[in-house]
Amino acid sequence: MEPTNPLSNISVVLVETQRGGNIGAAARAMNNMGLQHLKLVSPREWMNEECQMLAGKAIDLVTSAKIYSTLDEAVEEENIVIGTTSARKRKGSQKIHTPREMAPRLCEYGKAQRVALVFGPERSGLTDAHLAKCQYLVSIPASPDSPVLNLAQAVLVLAYEIFTVQPPVSDFSFQLASDGEREQMFADMQRVLVDIGFLNSQNPDHIMRSIRRFLGRADLTPRDVRILRGMMSQVEWFVGGHRSPDR
Amino acid sequence: MEPTNPLSNISVVLVETQRGGNIGAAARAMNNMGLQHLKLVSPREWMNEECQMLAGKAIDLVTSAKIYSTLDEAVEEENIVIGTTSARKRKGSQKIHTPREMAPRLCEYGKAQRVALVFGPERSGLTDAHLAKCQYLVSIPASPDSPVLNLAQAVLVLAYEIFTVQPPVSDFSFQLASDGEREQMFADMQRVLVDIGFLNSQNPDHIMRSIRRFLGRADLTPRDVRILRGMMSQVEWFVGGHRSPDR
Repeated sequence: MEPTNPLSNISVVLVETQRGGNIGAAARAMNNMGLQHLKLVSPREWMNEECQMLAGKAIDLVTSAKIYSTLDEAVEEENIVIGTTSARKRKGSQKIHTPREMAPRLCEYGKAQRVALVFGPERSGLTDAHLAKCQYLVSIPASPDSPVLNLAQAVLVLAYEIFTVQPPVSDFSFQLASDGEREQMFADMQRVLVDIGFLNSQNPDHIMRSIRRFLGRADLTPRDVRILRGMMSQVEWFVGGHRSPDR
Repeated sequence: MEPTNPLSNISVVLVETQRGGNIGAAARAMNNMGLQHLKLVSPREWMNEECQMLAGKAIDLVTSAKIYSTLDEAVEEENIVIGTTSARKRKGSQKIHTPREMAPRLCEYGKAQRVALVFGPERSGLTDAHLAKCQYLVSIPASPDSPVLNLAQAVLVLAYEIFTVQPPVSDFSFQLASDGEREQMFADMQRVLVDIGFLNSQNPDHIMRSIRRFLGRADLTPRDVRILRGMMSQVEWFVGGHRSPDR
């Protein structure tokens, strides 16, 4: 059996959203992060011009969204319900997790369970009654001076944290030069720089150490080393061809 | 002395943004994550109704934003310049980092250096010329089917990753060269390397881009820049003094 992609089991539930634009922007964010299932609970507006503009290609998610009149109906078939709340609303009794703490767990659940991420209305957020339905609460870390994120931004952070739990997508196959290659380059460089009088032949080390330090930080590839060696041999050729006979 | 809050040294630079709404939403995201410095390079529009609506209380960031006509001007005094690019534009040779990899490093830099996070226009993103100016490139992991985030969403992800970095451990207090110092150095270098025939005067960019890349990764200090400029002027002096009259 193919292992299930956890993302295909994770829904976003937007409760009593006031602006179609936020639904569109949330759909785009979901699409960016591989989430496909959108549920809307009593939205005041949804498929309007602003929604379409902000959703872009993700408008399909809005078109296929399911509409419910209560949160209970929307999450009836979900196995795991996650409520989002802003830091300012933290209640003493229910533990609040960060998205980063929750994300690996949600991906685990998502392999075999249906998971719902629930977001409240723009101004007020989820009510205590809504939050009480949720098995886990998540709050996005933010500045105490301005802790409330835009709705679609909050959807993005959750979706992004879940998406980045997946096996990483970046490729770092980039080959670095070997120490031997670098040492040949430094030897060339020192010889040429002494030759043109940039380094003192009696004491080239002081400046060479600085050069080694900053080139050492540069993660040089074999190509980079070839460029630097080519540069030095061009200088050498120039100097050789144009050196006055008395030197 | 109070340790500097790294967030106070980190700017967001939006290049050729088309919609004021995106600038407003980006400002709100920055405010949520404790970033305060916004720079705008040739925005098509900024302080309009849509911008104000989406910025909310963060409108102050837009009011106090500095406006520039080119990216060069905007980052001239920055020490570390980070370019953002979408996965679809990845070039083979320049290493791309994830926001999570870069965030701790940016916080380290931010203790004593000025850091700029640069974002391109909505549709097209940063150009190759813009990216070539950046010392590090960051790409936000996203679904291959829909890899391009809304501008303000991208700003949020970077700001969120930086905000959620734990108090860092190592120390990065050494002073780095500014972008302006580096650009003078690259200009010298290009002139001299064309002069000695290492670069083709018709097409110096290909090799210069590689040189910019590896020196961009080298965390050059003002002293390192002086060494490299000194090296170039020594070559230039040598070439000038020894050039045959027919050249």
